[in-house]
Amino acid sequence: MKVYVIGIGLIGGSMVLDIKEKHPNATIFGIDNNEKHLQEAIDLGVIEKAGSFEDLAEADFVIVSVPVDVALTVLPKVLDLVGDKTIVFEVGSTKKPICEAVASHPKRRNFIATHPIAGTEFSGPSAAIKGLFQGKTNIICEVEKTTFKLQEKALKLFAEIGMRIRYMDPISHDKHIAYVSHLSHISSFMLGKTVMNKEKDEQDIFDMAGSGFESTVRLAKSSPAMWTPIFKQNKEHVIETLEEYISNLSRFRDLLKEENYNAIFEEMESTNKIKEILNGLTTTKK
Amino acid sequence: MKVYVIGIGLIGGSMVLDIKEKHPNATIFGIDNNEKHLQEAIDLGVIEKAGSFEDLAEADFVIVSVPVDVALTVLPKVLDLVGDKTIVFEVGSTKKPICEAVASHPKRRNFIATHPIAGTEFSGPSAAIKGLFQGKTNIICEVEKTTFKLQEKALKLFAEIGMRIRYMDPISHDKHIAYVSHLSHISSFMLGKTVMNKEKDEQDIFDMAGSGFESTVRLAKSSPAMWTPIFKQNKEHVIETLEEYISNLSRFRDLLKEENYNAIFEEMESTNKIKEILNGLTTTKK
Repeated sequence: MKVYVIGIGLIGGSMVLDIKEKHPNATIFGIDNNEKHLQEAIDLGVIEKAGSFEDLAEADFVIVSVPVDVALTVLPKVLDLVGDKTIVFEVGSTKKPICEAVASHPKRRNFIATHPIAGTEFSGPSAAIKGLFQGKTNIICEVEKTTFKLQEKALKLFAEIGMRIRYMDPISHDKHIAYVSHLSHISSFMLGKTVMNKEKDEQDIFDMAGSGFESTVRLAKSSPAMWTPIFKQNKEHVIETLEEYISNLSRFRDLLKEENYNAIFEEMESTNKIKEILNGLTTTKK
Repeated sequence: MKVYVIGIGLIGGSMVLDIKEKHPNATIFGIDNNEKHLQEAIDLGVIEKAGSFEDLAEADFVIVSVPVDVALTVLPKVLDLVGDKTIVFEVGSTKKPICEAVASHPKRRNFIATHPIAGTEFSGPSAAIKGLFQGKTNIICEVEKTTFKLQEKALKLFAEIGMRIRYMDPISHDKHIAYVSHLSHISSFMLGKTVMNKEKDEQDIFDMAGSGFESTVRLAKSSPAMWTPIFKQNKEHVIETLEEYISNLSRFRDLLKEENYNAIFEEMESTNKIKEILNGLTTTKK
């Protein structure tokens, strides 16, 4: 079994680590524009050797795990080269632009659009970890556009590394994910910015910040190179979520100005039911 | 040694658990308006027995760990009753109103104003855990207003449970803590509200939300009864942080609308240096 991973970072790297564990005889090839990352991935044992686009015809699996803007150009190029039995999948955080980029490709049926809801705030080959996908959701879009036998092949692999599957159309995916993922990243980045701008003397933050701040601002460590194209591709939905978030924050500020503490209490109490939702997450996903 | 804890929740409960571990011969008395909490605290072994205000003259330590609005009335009452050798401390998230409430009390010198920067999103006696304060910062305000011998007694106790001390005036405390703690709570509550309002079908959140959302929205599980009076007492500073946060979010939205992706990249990249600050937190505080 030959597995190619194009872009060896957190997601692609973690995925081949799990695949290698389940398929010790598989050969894991890596392709990455960044020579340093390629060597690092070999040294860390994330991949076995460097691969080349010319050999993709022999691949069983091709995992495209590059920033979503790069995916738009890499995916058609990959599909041009793959063999009949190759299944290609891509793992980015937007799905409509990706699906559109390959919609009329003659080998569209060798492609399956996925979004594994898994990750950490780290990036690069050293961020790859085993077991990242265990119990996590993998969202698959336009499954009907993939050859049935290759669907089966991909789904078997996803099941082996522990993922639950959910099917969704690309527009719904991009709309919902703006709320539960993209907005969190912006809220965290801007929280980090607000505090750092104010607290020029970092020692003040360092001494006074607790685990609450740490948790809320964790995503502000994420890679701008990965996130800028995501926000670009999902611009309309992200702007919508931001408008609503800003409006809710402004209302909270106004309630404070008006000293309407009963309403402030209610704002928080009604949001407390997020507990049950998060408990659900923790139980099934951790 | 007699230790009284008034308000047996996350902070007060965790503190007496650690004190009992260091001083097995100490007797831990609890006082709580909530009879259920009082019994629960005894059943869980957080306290040994119910205490009463009338006996406070015999206390070595009195820990006042009630919501900050309640503290304003409880603290003077406690100081009225304590003996010469009793040191009283309070652990809430605002310091200026608390210090003002006792400023002219004849037993002001028996009081030390503290804010242990420690906690979780849980509350009540069952939230009490051992070791919560290990390596954490305890901010002490107006230390010069406390009798020297009683300062020493309190500082020894804080050192025993693993806390680092930082001294600060109450106004600076309230200003900085608005940024590194109070704002995080509001950003998290309003993020939770925004997503829940949109995603009426909770299953959508449940399936698509990952660990990033969970981390960012964790503080939205916090107690409204505890947080409403904090926001009330620190209103001016909290409004200031909210204005800046809303302004930064609005700018990010405008950059998206203008499709200025270079600026969006820079917004995130300049905030990435929060990594070093958070690494500092993780190294010393976890």
